[in-house]
Amino acid sequence: MAGTSVVTLAGGVGGAKLAEGLQARLGVRLTVVVNTADDCVRHGLLVMPDHDTVLYNLAGIEQVGLGWGIEGDTHAVMAQLGTYGEPTWFGLGDRDLALHITRTAAVRAGARPTESCLAAQRSLGLAARILPMTDAPVATAVLTADGWLEFQEYFVHQRQTPDVLGLRFEGIEAATLTPEVEAALANAAAIILGPSNPLVSIGPILAVPGMRSALSAARSRGAVTAAVSPIIGGRALKGPADRMLSSLGHEPTALGVARLYADLVDVFVFDSIDAALAPAVQALGLRALVADTVMTDDRSRERLAATVLTALGIS
Amino acid sequence: MAGTSVVTLAGGVGGAKLAEGLQARLGVRLTVVVNTADDCVRHGLLVMPDHDTVLYNLAGIEQVGLGWGIEGDTHAVMAQLGTYGEPTWFGLGDRDLALHITRTAAVRAGARPTESCLAAQRSLGLAARILPMTDAPVATAVLTADGWLEFQEYFVHQRQTPDVLGLRFEGIEAATLTPEVEAALANAAAIILGPSNPLVSIGPILAVPGMRSALSAARSRGAVTAAVSPIIGGRALKGPADRMLSSLGHEPTALGVARLYADLVDVFVFDSIDAALAPAVQALGLRALVADTVMTDDRSRERLAATVLTALGIS
Repeated sequence: MAGTSVVTLAGGVGGAKLAEGLQARLGVRLTVVVNTADDCVRHGLLVMPDHDTVLYNLAGIEQVGLGWGIEGDTHAVMAQLGTYGEPTWFGLGDRDLALHITRTAAVRAGARPTESCLAAQRSLGLAARILPMTDAPVATAVLTADGWLEFQEYFVHQRQTPDVLGLRFEGIEAATLTPEVEAALANAAAIILGPSNPLVSIGPILAVPGMRSALSAARSRGAVTAAVSPIIGGRALKGPADRMLSSLGHEPTALGVARLYADLVDVFVFDSIDAALAPAVQALGLRALVADTVMTDDRSRERLAATVLTALGIS
Repeated sequence: MAGTSVVTLAGGVGGAKLAEGLQARLGVRLTVVVNTADDCVRHGLLVMPDHDTVLYNLAGIEQVGLGWGIEGDTHAVMAQLGTYGEPTWFGLGDRDLALHITRTAAVRAGARPTESCLAAQRSLGLAARILPMTDAPVATAVLTADGWLEFQEYFVHQRQTPDVLGLRFEGIEAATLTPEVEAALANAAAIILGPSNPLVSIGPILAVPGMRSALSAARSRGAVTAAVSPIIGGRALKGPADRMLSSLGHEPTALGVARLYADLVDVFVFDSIDAALAPAVQALGLRALVADTVMTDDRSRERLAATVLTALGIS
């Protein structure tokens, strides 16, 4: 492989943390492809939660301990929106809103979401690039006992309480990879599926028509691929991935995740607490890489990134 | 006259202050018709400066000493918009932005501007109603030595510095009065042209096709009409009305304003400092009402409102 660029696929918090560690090692050589199936329109503004979480993490301004927003942000706009009768359960901070306002104006003026995201990344001085998986509208819907829910209704408003009985990605059939994503995959020396929810974060990215064949083509020409388990000791560190795996018929363990990715990657990275699963992971034809995958600070993010990159032969 | 409702025409600050005094006397009997030719799209959001200034004044939350915004508002969004390369010279506060966000969403979803404005007024608990003069887009352009400028470029960005050599209200030919404005005028016992800029605030309202004939029809059926001069001692208390009158060939005095309104009103109200102009005002066929027209606080606003209403026989 002549190229030394790396692509990581990410949803929200877990994928963003690994991306931060990767950016610290790779700088401009890193491209993050983010899920857009969580994107939504709130108060008439286009919000891209996964892109924005990765953006704020890579800019070092993410709200610590939460999966969204900017550290120290204020909430004057949202309070006033409530006065005008707007629902306020999807809390957007003031500085965060500036991004949604700018992006909505740009997209309404004819820009692709990708272009407006890249502009925001330049404004915040990012080294890495973050690419939406597609510029087409895709929307995850969640089947619960009460019927189909819009994703943020399930995720934020109902706090992931209902059991998930089914998923669909509306619009996915008509979606296409962006030219930027295609080029990044075609040039990648390594591709890493980040520790995000495999069903509603990585799942939609893999479901974009052309994505699986692009991954396959990359492997054919020698790109190495890895996935990092978001499940540690049978639990998701954040979010409903464990319960969602279970209610949708998958094993809520790192092994269950490994099974989902077995035909896509060479290396499967999972936590040392799950070291006993190594033989079963290997039996899937995967190289098992046991590591400390809990990312509590910048150092642990960079350490995990370094471990994965080393395993993939990227220096 | 059976009706006891009153309509006042208003632009920004001066008209808003009189409207506040009128609301204190009349409550729900007051309708304010506001200029919309200053409306603009900023950061993709529909901003209606004159409506919003009147709204915040009538809600008692206006930024004291300035012609726009909410008292004590913060500016977190605007600072962040600057980070994304958006121009920041048109300063919009955080709580103020919530109105523009809500309105833009409503209008994009199909509401008329009038409907979204009325909803905001209900949310803020107003007694009076504020009606945009039209729901059609109208945009004031200002001719300067450097050519035609968009109104806010002249008014805010260039701080009203250039001499105004011409005015046009783009879109005015296609504009129509709203049903709400037509009904308010048809039912008014009195109509008061507020102390706003006669050329760029009251002027566009009068220029909406149907407005002059509606005023005329109201007078024919017995409605009494008055205008309050925004020029006091040859100066505008706020804004460029005096210089604009002068550069556009009008006398920059209360008498110059009286001449502009002579065929529209019965009573002309002007400041006691200009009492010597009374004979000239009367010579135009107008009833001259000399009063203290400087509105420095709630009491002086209500006192002027009471003086005008008494002169018009409204109790």
